[in-house]
Amino acid sequence: MKRFVSTLIATGTLGSVIGCIALASGQPDDTPGSVLGGKLPCGYRDWRLISVAREEGALDDIRAVLGNDAAIKTYREGKLPFPESSAIARLAWSCDVSEENNKSFGKKQSYVAGHPKNGVQFMVKDSVKYASTGGWGYAQFEDGKSVLDAAMIQKCFECHKACKDHDFVFTRYAP
Amino acid sequence: MKRFVSTLIATGTLGSVIGCIALASGQPDDTPGSVLGGKLPCGYRDWRLISVAREEGALDDIRAVLGNDAAIKTYREGKLPFPESSAIARLAWSCDVSEENNKSFGKKQSYVAGHPKNGVQFMVKDSVKYASTGGWGYAQFEDGKSVLDAAMIQKCFECHKACKDHDFVFTRYAP
Repeated sequence: MKRFVSTLIATGTLGSVIGCIALASGQPDDTPGSVLGGKLPCGYRDWRLISVAREEGALDDIRAVLGNDAAIKTYREGKLPFPESSAIARLAWSCDVSEENNKSFGKKQSYVAGHPKNGVQFMVKDSVKYASTGGWGYAQFEDGKSVLDAAMIQKCFECHKACKDHDFVFTRYAP
Repeated sequence: MKRFVSTLIATGTLGSVIGCIALASGQPDDTPGSVLGGKLPCGYRDWRLISVAREEGALDDIRAVLGNDAAIKTYREGKLPFPESSAIARLAWSCDVSEENNKSFGKKQSYVAGHPKNGVQFMVKDSVKYASTGGWGYAQFEDGKSVLDAAMIQKCFECHKACKDHDFVFTRYAP
């Protein structure tokens, strides 16, 4: 099964933070009720780094995967499965040649993050509500708006079955 | 001027957190006195994401640049120069083919962070102490140990002069 979602929704997302929400306390709302209710939390850009990746092909991006506190704790302790309300965000940008860096290096070798690309994707653990998709709810935002319908979420899950042994999460922690 | 430091010290850093220090409060010590005094702060891996990059050539890594609170605030507000005690960390890993991801995508296109590589580098703002290098002190750690001598630090600065207009910092914030 292919990762259709990322490929199908490969549009720019400049302005992904539009419409994000925060709790009255000022803390980011990273609860399943926010992300999976179709509302982009303000605070996900502050989550800590899990890892980075480069996708060539149709996606053609450079990406970072961030996790909320519950997710990071689980990664670092190495104890699967992820607990309830764990949340993981995948951000991606165009993979742009850096002329500035290359000039300093004296050769063409450097690529940096450009404009946001391929949406912002989330996995949020709610093992009761999302029991049918491995205990994870999936969401994707384009320009701050949730864009996944039920069929697309099912495709997310079908793909993530490949890493069932890692609680359906592809990304490993970068040490 | 080339970025000699990164190229010259392109050894693995598995165990970079060995010997890191924390304040009595449990908060990471990300002060200039720690990083530039030759001690790796425990908490830099918790700093927030500034951006990601891919370096080909001799470096051949995929990397993330993280910032402490002062650095992140400055990036987001877009108001240079960075204030005192701003700290920026560059982490890097081998850029490994992900067979697991490629199998899901149905084609070879996916690269993920592998083992730590090319050390962990820091820039810390102390405009008085480091006035001769643009107000920034430079540090690099290999297996938790500081490895830059005065001549190498000078080479860092010579290279970073190329981005004087961005307060000597190459990395821009990934939106």
